Amino acid sequence: MKTLKPLALTLGDPAGIGPQLAVEAWRRLRLSGEGAFFWLGDPRLVESAVPVTCIGSPKEAGAVFSDSLPVLPVFCEADVVPGRPDSRNAGATISSIRLAVEYVLAGRAGGVVTNPIAKHVLAATGFPYPGHTEFLAALCACPGEEIMMLASPQLKVVPVTVHVSLRRALDTLTTDRIVSVAKAANTALKRDFGIAAPRLAIAGLNPHAGEHGMMGEEETTIIQPAIDRLRAQGINCQGPLPPDTMFSANARPNYDTAICMYHDQALIPLKTLDMAEGVNVTLGLPIIRTSPDHGTAFDIAGPVTGFCRADVSSLLAAIRLAGEMSIYRERRG
Amino acid sequence: MKTLKPLALTLGDPAGIGPQLAVEAWRRLRLSGEGAFFWLGDPRLVESAVPVTCIGSPKEAGAVFSDSLPVLPVFCEADVVPGRPDSRNAGATISSIRLAVEYVLAGRAGGVVTNPIAKHVLAATGFPYPGHTEFLAALCACPGEEIMMLASPQLKVVPVTVHVSLRRALDTLTTDRIVSVAKAANTALKRDFGIAAPRLAIAGLNPHAGEHGMMGEEETTIIQPAIDRLRAQGINCQGPLPPDTMFSANARPNYDTAICMYHDQALIPLKTLDMAEGVNVTLGLPIIRTSPDHGTAFDIAGPVTGFCRADVSSLLAAIRLAGEMSIYRERRG
Repeated sequence: MKTLKPLALTLGDPAGIGPQLAVEAWRRLRLSGEGAFFWLGDPRLVESAVPVTCIGSPKEAGAVFSDSLPVLPVFCEADVVPGRPDSRNAGATISSIRLAVEYVLAGRAGGVVTNPIAKHVLAATGFPYPGHTEFLAALCACPGEEIMMLASPQLKVVPVTVHVSLRRALDTLTTDRIVSVAKAANTALKRDFGIAAPRLAIAGLNPHAGEHGMMGEEETTIIQPAIDRLRAQGINCQGPLPPDTMFSANARPNYDTAICMYHDQALIPLKTLDMAEGVNVTLGLPIIRTSPDHGTAFDIAGPVTGFCRADVSSLLAAIRLAGEMSIYRERRG
Repeated sequence: MKTLKPLALTLGDPAGIGPQLAVEAWRRLRLSGEGAFFWLGDPRLVESAVPVTCIGSPKEAGAVFSDSLPVLPVFCEADVVPGRPDSRNAGATISSIRLAVEYVLAGRAGGVVTNPIAKHVLAATGFPYPGHTEFLAALCACPGEEIMMLASPQLKVVPVTVHVSLRRALDTLTTDRIVSVAKAANTALKRDFGIAAPRLAIAGLNPHAGEHGMMGEEETTIIQPAIDRLRAQGINCQGPLPPDTMFSANARPNYDTAICMYHDQALIPLKTLDMAEGVNVTLGLPIIRTSPDHGTAFDIAGPVTGFCRADVSSLLAAIRLAGEMSIYRERRG
């Protein structure tokens, strides 16, 4: 990792597994030489067995990281009971995200890694965003430009339509949207993933990619025109590919990222191959942002003693990926 | 395998890889002790380096199988040029399928394994069926009752809607259809797969299985009622499950077969996990029928010399699975 700037890890919902995962990720990374992160969280949540250093600025994180978890304090208003979310602590959750973005935009942190939040807890306080990603886009003053990528060691996917019903995905799929998503993916692969000449695989929508119109017209009317426009702009893309075969072991080496037409076309192959190490990456923003691909897991949250029942794989992968991305971006910048 | 009755392997398109695969499958299985099959094909296609015995009845296959490929002759009308399909040979392709079904229905063969056909070659001669499966159902006098299962070592899936556009899949998905497909799968798992108490996983349709109606209503209006009816009939099923996580390594051991709402929801995870050994199984018919999960591959078809460029994994898996199914059925029968 060895990024010059530390990464900012947010609080997430303090009653979820985020605080435990923050400590566990620090334990795994502190001596790895991969670079530092700091936690924008409440140091009072961490029991005394775990060494913590409260810092006043991100630049202090690197010096203490090998010995203690650097914490840039964001205090919770109400007592935190693991497993019992409390909307009085929504303010701390939101502040943590806001501060993390500010540090990155100011060039003082390399990227944001977000711990899981519970949308219903935030919504109860009037938080107007459906999720993390939309809030981050608003903080970066580019609402609507956020694009979701899921990345695992074996596969990277970008869904063109995301959290809508399958019927609504069909109704809202357009050539323009495919083009803009594929272009954003192409830009990110060059800037943040170190791929000089990205190869995109554009999925079909229907079985067998429509089989010459016998099983659907969208490949002809919507997807092929997008591919034509992308190629005219010099973007290397193949498709529309039959969705069922394009994620096989033989096919995956032929592209860097799959552009998928709907949520499950992207997420089924990714999670089928690798459930634990998937990382959610937000493209299209001026900041680097990654997130573990799981929720708050209130059912297994416990006190922050240094022992962690939850699987830290996804958060570790998210931190490492954000670190790699920030190095690529710094080198180019 | 050790089935009492030999399996019937069809000709398929004689200009495709079927004849080569038949010989290659025989070479791999002849000394395995797994049981015999006979090929309903044209012995003149097999070059002299490959030992062949023409038989007059399926019951002769077992005695010769270890030394030569048993061939129940079905002669092609026109010369066969590998890679160049000829509709004059459609008659032989069709006869082979018809004979195979007759032998199984008469109790003289244990099951049908079909080599790939090219629909457009048969259609050019007026063949009125869209594919193998519909023709087989007609031969068995139960048109419309055929159900497709894809089986691999890691996963078995049954799509409720199959070769239709995704939009049409949404428009035609009904509670009745889910119930009838799941019941047929349940029956087949007990009768032909030796599973005394099958566990079915019923997929949702929308992202996160609709997330309480926030991303689609079909889980509530169509799928849950099907699950309720299935449970009322004593069928063990769970769902509607979030489609993206239900095929992960942790989730797969919790069920025997996944009932999927559309083609790619079933085929993406199957082919992502295992492209080579997928087997197409037709449920709902009185006969056992399996098929390799690939096409005629005219581009790599060659003379039947005993050397085979094509990957025989899927046909081998299809023969073995048909053999296992026929043993389970004979034991019960």
